[in-house]
Amino acid sequence: MTRRADIYRLFNPSNHESGANRLRFFEVLVNLIGIVSVSAGTLHEMSTSARSLAALVTGIVASLFLAEYLLRLWFAPEIPHPSTLTTAQARLRWALSPTGVIDLLAMIPALAVASGEARLGAESASVFVLLWVLKLATGAPGVALIARVLHNQRSALGAVAALFAIVLFSSATIAHWLEAETQPQFFGSIPSSLWWAVVTLTTTGYGDVVPQSPVGRLLGGVVMLFGISVLALLAGILANGFADEVRRREFIRIWDLVAKVHFFSNVGAIAVADIVGQLRSRSFSAGQTVISKGEAGDAMYFLVSGSVRVQIGARTEILHEGAFFGEMALLERKPRSADVVTLTPCTTLVLDVADFYRLAGMQPGLIAAIEVEAKRRRAKDNESGTQ
Amino acid sequence: MTRRADIYRLFNPSNHESGANRLRFFEVLVNLIGIVSVSAGTLHEMSTSARSLAALVTGIVASLFLAEYLLRLWFAPEIPHPSTLTTAQARLRWALSPTGVIDLLAMIPALAVASGEARLGAESASVFVLLWVLKLATGAPGVALIARVLHNQRSALGAVAALFAIVLFSSATIAHWLEAETQPQFFGSIPSSLWWAVVTLTTTGYGDVVPQSPVGRLLGGVVMLFGISVLALLAGILANGFADEVRRREFIRIWDLVAKVHFFSNVGAIAVADIVGQLRSRSFSAGQTVISKGEAGDAMYFLVSGSVRVQIGARTEILHEGAFFGEMALLERKPRSADVVTLTPCTTLVLDVADFYRLAGMQPGLIAAIEVEAKRRRAKDNESGTQ
Amino acid sequence: MTRRADIYRLFNPSNHESGANRLRFFEVLVNLIGIVSVSAGTLHEMSTSARSLAALVTGIVASLFLAEYLLRLWFAPEIPHPSTLTTAQARLRWALSPTGVIDLLAMIPALAVASGEARLGAESASVFVLLWVLKLATGAPGVALIARVLHNQRSALGAVAALFAIVLFSSATIAHWLEAETQPQFFGSIPSSLWWAVVTLTTTGYGDVVPQSPVGRLLGGVVMLFGISVLALLAGILANGFADEVRRREFIRIWDLVAKVHFFSNVGAIAVADIVGQLRSRSFSAGQTVISKGEAGDAMYFLVSGSVRVQIGARTEILHEGAFFGEMALLERKPRSADVVTLTPCTTLVLDVADFYRLAGMQPGLIAAIEVEAKRRRAKDNESGTQ
Amino acid sequence: MTRRADIYRLFNPSNHESGANRLRFFEVLVNLIGIVSVSAGTLHEMSTSARSLAALVTGIVASLFLAEYLLRLWFAPEIPHPSTLTTAQARLRWALSPTGVIDLLAMIPALAVASGEARLGAESASVFVLLWVLKLATGAPGVALIARVLHNQRSALGAVAALFAIVLFSSATIAHWLEAETQPQFFGSIPSSLWWAVVTLTTTGYGDVVPQSPVGRLLGGVVMLFGISVLALLAGILANGFADEVRRREFIRIWDLVAKVHFFSNVGAIAVADIVGQLRSRSFSAGQTVISKGEAGDAMYFLVSGSVRVQIGARTEILHEGAFFGEMALLERKPRSADVVTLTPCTTLVLDVADFYRLAGMQPGLIAAIEVEAKRRRAKDNESGTQ
Repeated sequence: MTRRADIYRLFNPSNHESGANRLRFFEVLVNLIGIVSVSAGTLHEMSTSARSLAALVTGIVASLFLAEYLLRLWFAPEIPHPSTLTTAQARLRWALSPTGVIDLLAMIPALAVASGEARLGAESASVFVLLWVLKLATGAPGVALIARVLHNQRSALGAVAALFAIVLFSSATIAHWLEAETQPQFFGSIPSSLWWAVVTLTTTGYGDVVPQSPVGRLLGGVVMLFGISVLALLAGILANGFADEVRRREFIRIWDLVAKVHFFSNVGAIAVADIVGQLRSRSFSAGQTVISKGEAGDAMYFLVSGSVRVQIGARTEILHEGAFFGEMALLERKPRSADVVTLTPCTTLVLDVADFYRLAGMQPGLIAAIEVEAKRRRAKDNESGTQ
Repeated sequence: MTRRADIYRLFNPSNHESGANRLRFFEVLVNLIGIVSVSAGTLHEMSTSARSLAALVTGIVASLFLAEYLLRLWFAPEIPHPSTLTTAQARLRWALSPTGVIDLLAMIPALAVASGEARLGAESASVFVLLWVLKLATGAPGVALIARVLHNQRSALGAVAALFAIVLFSSATIAHWLEAETQPQFFGSIPSSLWWAVVTLTTTGYGDVVPQSPVGRLLGGVVMLFGISVLALLAGILANGFADEVRRREFIRIWDLVAKVHFFSNVGAIAVADIVGQLRSRSFSAGQTVISKGEAGDAMYFLVSGSVRVQIGARTEILHEGAFFGEMALLERKPRSADVVTLTPCTTLVLDVADFYRLAGMQPGLIAAIEVEAKRRRAKDNESGTQ
Repeated sequence: MTRRADIYRLFNPSNHESGANRLRFFEVLVNLIGIVSVSAGTLHEMSTSARSLAALVTGIVASLFLAEYLLRLWFAPEIPHPSTLTTAQARLRWALSPTGVIDLLAMIPALAVASGEARLGAESASVFVLLWVLKLATGAPGVALIARVLHNQRSALGAVAALFAIVLFSSATIAHWLEAETQPQFFGSIPSSLWWAVVTLTTTGYGDVVPQSPVGRLLGGVVMLFGISVLALLAGILANGFADEVRRREFIRIWDLVAKVHFFSNVGAIAVADIVGQLRSRSFSAGQTVISKGEAGDAMYFLVSGSVRVQIGARTEILHEGAFFGEMALLERKPRSADVVTLTPCTTLVLDVADFYRLAGMQPGLIAAIEVEAKRRRAKDNESGTQ
Repeated sequence: MTRRADIYRLFNPSNHESGANRLRFFEVLVNLIGIVSVSAGTLHEMSTSARSLAALVTGIVASLFLAEYLLRLWFAPEIPHPSTLTTAQARLRWALSPTGVIDLLAMIPALAVASGEARLGAESASVFVLLWVLKLATGAPGVALIARVLHNQRSALGAVAALFAIVLFSSATIAHWLEAETQPQFFGSIPSSLWWAVVTLTTTGYGDVVPQSPVGRLLGGVVMLFGISVLALLAGILANGFADEVRRREFIRIWDLVAKVHFFSNVGAIAVADIVGQLRSRSFSAGQTVISKGEAGDAMYFLVSGSVRVQIGARTEILHEGAFFGEMALLERKPRSADVVTLTPCTTLVLDVADFYRLAGMQPGLIAAIEVEAKRRRAKDNESGTQ
């Protein structure tokens, strides 16, 4: 049981440890290799040996997907589910979920290969591209974000779709009246006029069908204008929805990081909400230069995890998680007075200079606390601040 | 009189009961069937029997529209109108309103069919597509929203239209000078140059007319750049207008739902305005799983209507409208500790975790009240919280 | 002197009285007629008589522009200018300003006609289209707004332009390497490759030049992606700039209207800034129905100018400028209880229901004042509110 | 050492003195001349003498780049770097930085010319266009801003890229099934179908490949719709990211200018953050008219540097840095009562009238202070205000 939970941890999409990250990277790589090899298999100009190689790679990828499917089915009970379900019911629940169905379909080629049809026809194989792209999509984190945005904005998007459909049908019908006589092959019926309408309304403009009469061209111009307006409306809706959702996610991520910084535990709960909105996270690998002496000071840093070495002239100081540095350059608006280099991989919270001053307006107590801490540290070091 | 008001209730566009929703769906379906059948009737490749079928369907749809028109005329006095008008005047008012005129035109084919011309010519029939698309448009809720946005932003949109017209005419004129000699059939006059200008300015780019001289191509490049700038301007204007209007509508809808939740009646009027801005509504059908044990807690829920069953280990609790659940996972930042399943169709107000913390900053009293209520409930249940 | 100032008032672009509005409309109309007649004059298929008519109209329009130029030169000293200038210097200042120069050029055709060349050649005449479009542009109010936005965002726009230029040159050079051998007529030199690059980067896609090699097509795909990114960047910059500028202008306009409403004079200066941000202006002509009994209450109105008749059952009340109405439906969330019809042309400030509640959160005192006033009025009327 | 630091100051990208600005302008000019001359060298229609001239110019530009490279290598130790590095190590660090490598590559042609190959082949020379465009890009200030925005939004952009790739592969595969038989030359394999898919998905629409079957066209329509949605998503992401970053930079720039205005030193630190958000900077050259008597008052000005002459009727007043003017027209909502002309080049902070009133709501004390100062000045001048 513990074994199964451990393996699930590796495959859990919300686990961001390096093992899980590496596994996900490997999965995506295998998937992409599979897509490329099947795609290449459809090229007629390929030599027989190249074709055999592509078929072999396709088979290997499919086999890996078969193995993955069985593994996922095995640890499915670890996925959160209503506690009234038995282990078998939890497995069935996963198998019938969209992810389960797509994973099932994605491993079919492996079975087909095993059942003797060693070399699949290029045409039928191309079905797998679609399945594997779908499988890739279910795993991509951003796709879930976009799906959420589209879901949140569904009523506004529905309105734009209705508008689009109305303009599409209207313009196809009018174009049919205006151009049917001179170009019966393109505008002879409303369904065939629709092709021109959609190509024009999306401003794609293949140019295979073009209105010839002056009035038809006037209509064309109007349809193009409607097209860029619909696009503009769509951009507006999605822009706002995306910004909302990203802000929401970022807030949670930074909130969790802030909880790990000792300094913020002295700050009241109300102030923290203000601070979280201003911070951004940034990671450094070991040995990277965070701050160089003489640079303009554009941000201060809070250490969430890891250690850094601060070098002020001849003096050296080691800072550990929960500490902050880089505040002197902001408080005094002077160039950096120290070098800061990471000793271990570090996660930091960055407070940009503009946000620092804005925060100073909203939470003067916080900046005062930073100032006090900075003075205390400078007094201890005597003639030198952090940098 | 009551009968008439009851029937009007079904057709009232702001009624969202299931009967009215189903009727609207049926209306849209009939309308779409009509549009498709008329469109199909214009295909030359159709067999005579298919054509007869299309004509029959068109006739039926038109007859339904005739019936609808008479019905709407009958209950028109129920639509809000100045109370000084008589019943007949209220009917005339509706008949002369845009909706009334479009409905009148949409039913004309029915009369045409009745008056003996049983099989309308495909060409003349196609007029109905336009009328029926228009009828569809007047009923679509999103179209009204978009119309409102366009109305609100009319001065900015007018400015863009003026800019567009100025660039269009200028570029057509300059192109006429540059290309008239080499391509007289396309650039021989300003009106004919306008076709190239509009196709280029909207970045549609059919490719039927292309400048050949180096200077003409330079002009073409500039026009394309203007085109994407105009599109960008348009997107900016509509994006802001849309966001404003949607926020305004959402605010009212959530405000009305909040009024139904008992918990918020203890909260001062000023705080409610803050809360309303953070909540979103979400509906569940009966028997749906809202929360599964072990999931990450990403939101809390307020029950506006319906009942849910909360399952914590072996204990079961039934919550009714006005209650809230899911707050434990947010307060303690731990995975869900209970399963929550709907017993009836439910309407809920969802408070996302990010908005929960943001609200905690703005309205600390509210979150404290949630905490108190949660503790009280836990004390009552002794060893178990809601989930 | 007073005569001159009076005539200038009519031509002053910031005067919005009906006389000035009508004059501006007439100017635009004459300008458009001129543009159309010159454009039409370039059509080769025109009959001689039609051509003569177009030339005649063009001549008349040009003569009107000549008259306008002299008039504007005469009252130029009325335009604000440094008070150290003499009348003649003020006239020279206007004549050398962009507006003055364009107006001067726009009237040249009138002189040409007068000097004996009664029938201008179509080709040379087309120059006037450009001048007249320019003249139209200088007068359009929205064009000034857009110019201001472009000016404010000039550094960001410069960055996008630099990016665009860099991608354009890079892709033209690479395309030249890849395709020069197979398509020397299109990609034979970097300048000729630039045409393909600009057509692709703006996603216009004429299709006259298309890369044929697989690598060339890969480059093409990348260029298209860059193109939509540049467009997206541009949209983002302009969207924000436009929203800022429009908000700024609207604020001033509403501020001036609020100053005319008696009710707001009791409100402190700080509160007014909040209120101004929530109000929108709306004009009604005489005899228009503002509110109908039974409608959902979606806004309240403040009368800036004009009078309305409120009809509650059998009672009638006349409200004059400075009064407000429609607040009952918002305070009680019930349908309208009265009809309100304008007696004279009215300018109103509209407070939408969502903004009403939001304002209630920010300025509880203001909503309380509205409630008190509403109660007072109801007490006076006894059993009836405003609507 | 001081000499080296002085020369570095001229080349320091964050130095905005006129000498450094002029040098940067010269560098860009030389670079552009180089790009144009190499581009022109690829034209086959050029005469031999023109070709020699182009080669000569290219050689000169390359030589200048060689000189610049050596100069930059010489003063590299002045660029901020960890203080533990020796002078030689600092030089190596720069030489290996992206800027150093690009500068190195950009001067190679100079060496090639020097080593005897006096006239480079046009084809090989075109490589320099790319290098020089790259060199131009590293120096452009806006490019760094855009790079920062793209970096900040990388996760959201990655999501859109994933979505794009998924739609691209899916549509290419489906198109391959639908159209392979009728158009084997275009849709015969998935890789070749990808060309159609990318041209359609970006709505470029060359028109060289067009689906012919009804189902293929339906797919095409769907792909186009996806295309404009992806573009809209991208616009939304970049719009928000750009606005954030620009606001952040502007805040710092204005903050530094505000520190130089004496008037603001009396204002508390919290208030300054509010004020900085409302101000914009504007520069004037000597002798420019800032305000003309009789104009509408749309802004007030704070003098950061320089002097202006205020002319009120017959009286003249000189204002120096730290003073403000133009406040009377805002406080009293009347036209300007004075002329203000710059005596020296001036940098001003502009407070628009809308922002003035909004600020009045947020910081009533500040506006009161302005009012007091204005009254004091008027009392001193007796019968006249600033304008």
